[in-house]
Amino acid sequence: MDLLSVDSLTDAQIAALLDRAARFFADNREGRSSEALRGRIVFNLFYENSTRTAMSFGTAAHRLGASAISLSVEHSSVKKGETLGDTARTLNAMRPDALVIRHRENGAPAEVALIMDAPVINAGDGTNEHPTQALLDAASIRKHFGRIEGLRVAICGDIRHSRVARSNAKLLPRLGAEVRLAGPAELMPDGVPRLTVDQAVEGADVVMMLRVQRERLEHDLGDVPGEYLQRHGLTPERLSRAAPNAVVMHPGPMNRGTEIDSLVADDPQRSLITLQVEMGVAMRMACLELLLGA
Amino acid sequence: MDLLSVDSLTDAQIAALLDRAARFFADNREGRSSEALRGRIVFNLFYENSTRTAMSFGTAAHRLGASAISLSVEHSSVKKGETLGDTARTLNAMRPDALVIRHRENGAPAEVALIMDAPVINAGDGTNEHPTQALLDAASIRKHFGRIEGLRVAICGDIRHSRVARSNAKLLPRLGAEVRLAGPAELMPDGVPRLTVDQAVEGADVVMMLRVQRERLEHDLGDVPGEYLQRHGLTPERLSRAAPNAVVMHPGPMNRGTEIDSLVADDPQRSLITLQVEMGVAMRMACLELLLGA
Amino acid sequence: MDLLSVDSLTDAQIAALLDRAARFFADNREGRSSEALRGRIVFNLFYENSTRTAMSFGTAAHRLGASAISLSVEHSSVKKGETLGDTARTLNAMRPDALVIRHRENGAPAEVALIMDAPVINAGDGTNEHPTQALLDAASIRKHFGRIEGLRVAICGDIRHSRVARSNAKLLPRLGAEVRLAGPAELMPDGVPRLTVDQAVEGADVVMMLRVQRERLEHDLGDVPGEYLQRHGLTPERLSRAAPNAVVMHPGPMNRGTEIDSLVADDPQRSLITLQVEMGVAMRMACLELLLGA
Repeated sequence: MDLLSVDSLTDAQIAALLDRAARFFADNREGRSSEALRGRIVFNLFYENSTRTAMSFGTAAHRLGASAISLSVEHSSVKKGETLGDTARTLNAMRPDALVIRHRENGAPAEVALIMDAPVINAGDGTNEHPTQALLDAASIRKHFGRIEGLRVAICGDIRHSRVARSNAKLLPRLGAEVRLAGPAELMPDGVPRLTVDQAVEGADVVMMLRVQRERLEHDLGDVPGEYLQRHGLTPERLSRAAPNAVVMHPGPMNRGTEIDSLVADDPQRSLITLQVEMGVAMRMACLELLLGA
Repeated sequence: MDLLSVDSLTDAQIAALLDRAARFFADNREGRSSEALRGRIVFNLFYENSTRTAMSFGTAAHRLGASAISLSVEHSSVKKGETLGDTARTLNAMRPDALVIRHRENGAPAEVALIMDAPVINAGDGTNEHPTQALLDAASIRKHFGRIEGLRVAICGDIRHSRVARSNAKLLPRLGAEVRLAGPAELMPDGVPRLTVDQAVEGADVVMMLRVQRERLEHDLGDVPGEYLQRHGLTPERLSRAAPNAVVMHPGPMNRGTEIDSLVADDPQRSLITLQVEMGVAMRMACLELLLGA
Repeated sequence: MDLLSVDSLTDAQIAALLDRAARFFADNREGRSSEALRGRIVFNLFYENSTRTAMSFGTAAHRLGASAISLSVEHSSVKKGETLGDTARTLNAMRPDALVIRHRENGAPAEVALIMDAPVINAGDGTNEHPTQALLDAASIRKHFGRIEGLRVAICGDIRHSRVARSNAKLLPRLGAEVRLAGPAELMPDGVPRLTVDQAVEGADVVMMLRVQRERLEHDLGDVPGEYLQRHGLTPERLSRAAPNAVVMHPGPMNRGTEIDSLVADDPQRSLITLQVEMGVAMRMACLELLLGA
């Protein structure tokens, strides 16, 4: 079994992952460690740099007693012109117990999974999916509200290029939430109803802001610093349109002053942003446990 | 004891390594792990990037329960102008249980080994040697044919610059195989009888193709894409000159369409290429076990 | 508790660290390993490359049975413009058991420590402090002389920019040593009495040479190769002014022929340089043990 997309999971598996992550979250807080994956080897193959995701998966593996061997693109045979398929065949022949992969190209993890005998976890592929992010987001929402069903979730920003948005837009409705996607017209995918951020935030229980790349903004939108925040970012004023107990999420790393105002990001009553990171380790533990059949 | 060259090993040690690698190969397939090197620390010092070799040694160390600490050249004091001797004295003073080193310069591992108290394993030095590659190649051949003695092995490509060729040309004859070296005249070392690839492949039981660097081809040989494959690479036509049950090997990473045709590389009846990678982990486990006296 | 500066430690803690490091030094020599930090996770966050310090902390963590997850600046979200505070909040949310941090900016570890729940160890910040280096230096001196009190220690070189000098100048006097700082006038901090290296070395029991950056020398001092050594470096002639049993130290990596002559660096009767590296692992084990309350 692989975890390439939210679609890889049955409803029962999603429910089990949410429960296990909640349990691991508590275990980690109390300093309980596990040896469930002792002697197992997890390969972390990152073709894009990422502090948080690489550290999160590494920490999750270690917390279960597994060994993690990490490889970033700089050390990879990519530069020598080896095909992704050949890299996958090579890694498979080393017989790791799982492969976590992040790649710039949509579908790369699926291509690798066709070759690997061990489970493959997609840690983000291009603009396609980032299923463990959606799972940890759902687990964070559930931890805060005690439920997901019936909540209104506004996902705002560069929807067109966001694998986080894409995975969440698949997962959260399966759990009974209403998802609203909003952003500048230039950054919305085709075929999605265009909401302004103001419209999406209106009455929302959760406002999830996405990272926007300043280079893209300046190049594609002619944006000047501060302009995006006023037009599409999350300011306290804009957040006041949401439900009274609305919370704020962000997959990180944040561009403070661009997609999110620090007053919102750092509001301890409102922000789930560090909870998301903490839940990330717990959810990746749950995913490794599920896929490795520990 | 160090493993700097094929010459570092006695015949009895080579025989023991082949046997132990075969055993570890089976253990890895069956998911049996070992704690033989629990508490031991292996330093992996790579002055050249390498996915497969770095991952292979790391996996081997972990499969034996050891800890591996990896250092690539980007993180090294090399940039600060420290001599190799001083780096070796520094690493030695940290008292690792073994040091695996890959370096661009011929003889660098030997220089380091003069200083280190712990065993040093040469993971490839310049154009000199790559003894664990030759050992895993021998183990792969033996796994497939049940023997090495009496086999005819054609090694083809950039012989002049290949440490893989050099180590195999030392090891395989000691095990009773006949080795034939072939390649473009410009890429053959002085003093080696010049065979064409066609001549070397004629009747061979094993055809081992070496990686050629496209930059070198274009610069030194004026080669255009596709030309090398037709003149010196392994195509199905050329392979048909070999013995009826001949197999194909490649140390990777492959330049498909340059030194090897995909039809050959991917032929499950003929290609030992992924077997080599799998045996690589097993052989490095055997080498670590031998050198660390586990 | 954090270890950000020599000032972070009480006299009793310093004494305990020196004793524990001496014990770990002996244990490491005899190959005894510990499982005291089994299941604990240490994050090593290096915003500056460093072979010796990164490997030393990694080795120390492994020797205590802990897992170490290392992150160098290339893999970090720094490039994506995340603030240091946000990185700290992210790492904290993953709940490591300790964070080791090296950073170009003075005070960065202190900033991170305000956020982290786990202990933070400063592995060098800008021109500010490098407390574990001073501790390992003190432990090395004590191992050699059996005491620190009453010894005269000359620290020579680029005092202005040296965190090693700064931490030693705080620590050694607390242990009863006399510290003399010396170097070219351009490389001395304001308010420190100017001694020439010859004056500082006169009668010294310990001569600690600092690394000087050739680029800085050539740019700021118009130094030509060989000139610095003759004017301010440690040559056998200059060392002959020291006490009869004087020893030589250097935090590494050395610029041979610039701040130190190889005849001095490699003199087995005089040089504590590799002892410092070996003690470095032992002292970092002691620090991890102290801070993690093992």
